[in-house]
Amino acid sequence: MMNYVIGIDLGGTNIRAAAVTPGGEIFHRIKISSEVEKGKERVVKNLLDMIEEIDRRAKGEGRRLISVGLGIPGTIFYDRGVIAQSPNFPDWIDFDLKSRLAKDISLPFFIDNDANAAAIGEGWQGAGRDEKSFCCLTLGTGIGGGLVFNGDIWHGEDGMGGEIGHLIVDPDGPACGCGGRGCLETYASATGIIRMAKESYYSGDAVGLRERSNNNIDAVSSEMIYNLAKEGDYYARDILRAMSRHLGIGLADLVNLLNIGLIIIGGGVAAAWDLFITDTTKEMRERSYKVPGERVRIVRASCGDDAGILGAACIALKHSNFKERGGSI
Amino acid sequence: MMNYVIGIDLGGTNIRAAAVTPGGEIFHRIKISSEVEKGKERVVKNLLDMIEEIDRRAKGEGRRLISVGLGIPGTIFYDRGVIAQSPNFPDWIDFDLKSRLAKDISLPFFIDNDANAAAIGEGWQGAGRDEKSFCCLTLGTGIGGGLVFNGDIWHGEDGMGGEIGHLIVDPDGPACGCGGRGCLETYASATGIIRMAKESYYSGDAVGLRERSNNNIDAVSSEMIYNLAKEGDYYARDILRAMSRHLGIGLADLVNLLNIGLIIIGGGVAAAWDLFITDTTKEMRERSYKVPGERVRIVRASCGDDAGILGAACIALKHSNFKERGGSI
Repeated sequence: MMNYVIGIDLGGTNIRAAAVTPGGEIFHRIKISSEVEKGKERVVKNLLDMIEEIDRRAKGEGRRLISVGLGIPGTIFYDRGVIAQSPNFPDWIDFDLKSRLAKDISLPFFIDNDANAAAIGEGWQGAGRDEKSFCCLTLGTGIGGGLVFNGDIWHGEDGMGGEIGHLIVDPDGPACGCGGRGCLETYASATGIIRMAKESYYSGDAVGLRERSNNNIDAVSSEMIYNLAKEGDYYARDILRAMSRHLGIGLADLVNLLNIGLIIIGGGVAAAWDLFITDTTKEMRERSYKVPGERVRIVRASCGDDAGILGAACIALKHSNFKERGGSI
Repeated sequence: MMNYVIGIDLGGTNIRAAAVTPGGEIFHRIKISSEVEKGKERVVKNLLDMIEEIDRRAKGEGRRLISVGLGIPGTIFYDRGVIAQSPNFPDWIDFDLKSRLAKDISLPFFIDNDANAAAIGEGWQGAGRDEKSFCCLTLGTGIGGGLVFNGDIWHGEDGMGGEIGHLIVDPDGPACGCGGRGCLETYASATGIIRMAKESYYSGDAVGLRERSNNNIDAVSSEMIYNLAKEGDYYARDILRAMSRHLGIGLADLVNLLNIGLIIIGGGVAAAWDLFITDTTKEMRERSYKVPGERVRIVRASCGDDAGILGAACIALKHSNFKERGGSI
C-alpha cells in the first residue's frame, strides 16, 4: 500500500484539506466552510468529516493514511498541539485540539501556526525548496511570518517566534492589534492598506477612491487600491509608497539581523507585487549592510493557496520520519 | 599533559590574550597595545609574540597548546578565517589572517567576529550558561550583537548575521555609520549617547553638561552623562530616556521576531544599567506580544572584559571537539 498524509489549512472562513503523497503530490482536495460561529465542536466535526471523506476516497485507491498535519492561525503550543489563543476562533482558549481529535481518530496529529505551515510548504515544494534558511511573509488580512533556519522552523520559547509582522517599522505609528504601535502589519497587510485608504478617503482629497467606491467607505478594499494605483491614481500610489517603504524597513531588519539569503513573500497583498517590490527592495538596500543587502533574494511565494496544505502535510511527514520528502525542509 | 587553548580578543587599541583550560579557567593573561598604526605585519607579529609567550609559560607547567581562537571586530568570513573588512584595521581588506598566522605557527586557528565571541563567552561561562538560545548585545563604541540558537552562533549566509545594533528603531533618525538611518546603534552606543549629548550641548540649554565639561565639547563623554543623570540633571536624564526608549524598541523587535528567552547586555554602556533598564524593559513590554514579552529575561553580561577571551577560547575548543566544556554553548 502507498502511504500518504492529510494536510489541513484551518482558517476562520474555510477549511481546506487534501491528501498529500510523500513526494508532495496533492489529490482529493476538499474545501468547506469552517462554521466557527457554530462553536468548537462543530469545527472539530467538520475536520473529522473531511479526514474521513478524504481517507474513504484514498483507501479506495489502495492508499494508507499515516498521519495528519494542521495549520491554524493563532498561538499554538506546537509541541503539545494545544491552541493557546486564536483571533479567528474566539472560544478556542487553551484548547487541546490534539487530544480532542485523538478521541475520534487514532492517528498521529501535528499542529502548527498557519504562517509556519505556509513557510514549510514553500520550503518543501515552493520558492524555498533550494534554501536551507529563509524568511517567509504572508501578507494577508494580517501578516504571518515564518523563520526557517537550517531546514527547521524557528519556534522560539513559546512557539510564538517568527512574528515578522510585528517588527516595529514606525515607533510612533498607528496602533496595532498586538497592543504595540507602528508594527509592519499596520502598513503592509490588507488591513493596513485599507486603514491608509480610509485616511485618504476621509481627507477628502482622494477623489478617485470616492468615485470607485461609490462614496461608500465600507466598500473600500485593498484590491480597489491596487487597481487605482495601476491606473496612476495619485492617492492610491501614495498608499502603496507608504506600504513599500515600511515593508522595506522591515526587510532591512531581517537582513541586518539574520543575513538571510532568501525572503519569500506570499498572501493576498502579494498580488500587488509589481506595485511595491521595486520601492521595497530599494528601501531595504539603502538601510542594509552592503553584502547582506545585495545578497538577499526577495521572491514571490509559488505555492499559492496550497502552501498551508503542503506545509501541514510536510509537518506530518517530518514527524513520521519520511526522509524521501525532498526539498530543503 | 594537560591540554589548553589560547583565546585572543583583538581590538583596535589593545590585544588581550590568555590561556584557557577546557573547563574555562583563565590564566597567563597578557594585554598589549595592538599597534594598528604600524601596519598589519606588526599586529600579526604582536599576536604571534603573545601566543609564544603564553605557551612558554604554560609549557613550563606541563600544558599542551592545542589551538587558538581569535575574536576580531569587523566582517569575518569565519569559515575561512578571512577578514573582509574591519573599521579598526583599515588596511585589513580581504586579509587572510588564518593563512598568514599558519605561516609562522603550525596550530589550528579559528576566527570570528568579536561580538559573536563575546556572546559565546557569555554562553559558555557567563550569563547565558543555562540557556541554549539567547541574544547578546555589547553596547560599546558601537553595538555588537550575537545570536545563539540551540547552542550555536547564527552566522547567516556571509558570516554577518546578528547585527542587532542595526535594527531600525527610528526610520527618520540620525545617519548611521552603516549607511542606514536611525539604527539602534545611533541611540544606545557610547557614540550615540555622545551624539545626543552634543546636540543637547549645542542647544545651549544643558547648563550642567557645559559646566561639567568646562565648556569644552570635546571633553563630553558618555560617563559624564551617566554621572549627571545620577545626580538628577534634566538634560542628561532626557538623553538616557531617549536611549532607553530606542533600546526597548530594538528589544521588542527581537522578542516579537524570535520569542527568545534571554537577552544579555554587556559593554561599557551597560555600566549605566540602573539608569536605563527599567524604562527599556517597560518600552519593550508595551511593544511586545504578551507571552514572549513577559517571558524574556534581560540580564547584564557577567564575564566583563573576559567575554571575548573566553568566547575565542570556546570557539577553539569547540572546533577541537572538546566535549567536556560545559555551559550551554
